[in-house]
Amino acid sequence: MKIGILIFDEMTQLDATGPFEAFARIPGATVLLVAKHRRPVVAQFGLTVIPNTDLRYCPKLDILCVAGGSGVNDLLLDDEVLEFVRRQAKTAKYTTSVCTGSLVLGAAGLLRGKRAACHWASLPMLAAFGAKPSAKRIEHDGKLITAGGVTSGIDFGLWIAAKLAGRTAARRIQLMIQYDPKPPFRAGTPRQAGARLTRAHVRKNEEFQAARAALVARAAARLP
Amino acid sequence: MKIGILIFDEMTQLDATGPFEAFARIPGATVLLVAKHRRPVVAQFGLTVIPNTDLRYCPKLDILCVAGGSGVNDLLLDDEVLEFVRRQAKTAKYTTSVCTGSLVLGAAGLLRGKRAACHWASLPMLAAFGAKPSAKRIEHDGKLITAGGVTSGIDFGLWIAAKLAGRTAARRIQLMIQYDPKPPFRAGTPRQAGARLTRAHVRKNEEFQAARAALVARAAARLP
Repeated sequence: MKIGILIFDEMTQLDATGPFEAFARIPGATVLLVAKHRRPVVAQFGLTVIPNTDLRYCPKLDILCVAGGSGVNDLLLDDEVLEFVRRQAKTAKYTTSVCTGSLVLGAAGLLRGKRAACHWASLPMLAAFGAKPSAKRIEHDGKLITAGGVTSGIDFGLWIAAKLAGRTAARRIQLMIQYDPKPPFRAGTPRQAGARLTRAHVRKNEEFQAARAALVARAAARLP
Repeated sequence: MKIGILIFDEMTQLDATGPFEAFARIPGATVLLVAKHRRPVVAQFGLTVIPNTDLRYCPKLDILCVAGGSGVNDLLLDDEVLEFVRRQAKTAKYTTSVCTGSLVLGAAGLLRGKRAACHWASLPMLAAFGAKPSAKRIEHDGKLITAGGVTSGIDFGLWIAAKLAGRTAARRIQLMIQYDPKPPFRAGTPRQAGARLTRAHVRKNEEFQAARAALVARAAARLP
């Protein structure tokens, strides 16, 4: 059972490291961090991870998981990455993503007509790829499983663990990682955070999101 | 504002990467991954991270956070590491840990008479260091803040963000990382998981935990 997580510079590291912690504890699973190049990957805020393999040498995966983050923008028109995603998706049991990783699945042409999740701030952009944007924390549509923003990847990792190894194995992993979350505040979604805080965040990221939307439009225009 | 996370081989990577994601988003904060040596740190299950600095060159930290994991066993009698922890704790605003990182704080002599949290499976061992074991997800006793097992580090990271930058900043970080957890199962504590699953886990780790208990006893015997 081979699970590959696609990582890249300026990814949100928790998009990858959250599910990694659940995946790695699945009995019989091997988790590979896959990057375009073999050099260390520098995530947002500088956390630096050494990948296990690259696009070319990555074996056939049972599960492909694409992380998200601001670095997604650099992948949306990257044919080498998109071709890798398409190729793996053909034979994978599940093709998956966390956070804005679903934009990469969209750019690879895998979301047409599918329900898919994403980080709330970029969720509407999925429509450009023909997807049906879903505000769920875990969205499941056939072979496609997509998680919402960042920390959704932990819920998603346990969900995948159950799919692959059964409910008891997944519950055992949950016990090992003591996942009985107790957020100190209630602000994990725009609704919980309220209009004012959400607006402040959206305004601060306006320029970045506009650049992303332009890339998404170009990527969508290239789809057959 | 300098926040240092002590990382080491065979740590549980999510103990470090969970709080990192919250810490790094605190306005004005710099997060350093500190290791005994500058070479890459290989966490449990092989995830490999490049540290930013080492014990010797690490600047004075405002917050020290010690990660946990099976590699904690190698630190309990390591004078270089324990001396680093003691030195930083003298001037830090908060000395903190996630998961079994609190055993390292105990071995450094910082827990005597203090309430402290830990991963549930190793929690009773804190008593050897004179601590009052606490089953809370975040325990706060003076300058000491300790989190429970693995994923507690995310709740803890947001809690620290609020302490350092205020409640609004922390809530904004929670919104950014979309932290509205929805665990697919209810098995995050021994009580939730039930006696059978908990016993299965404990039995499988009996040998490791016995070795750890012996190291804890030796570390405790060395305290002045």
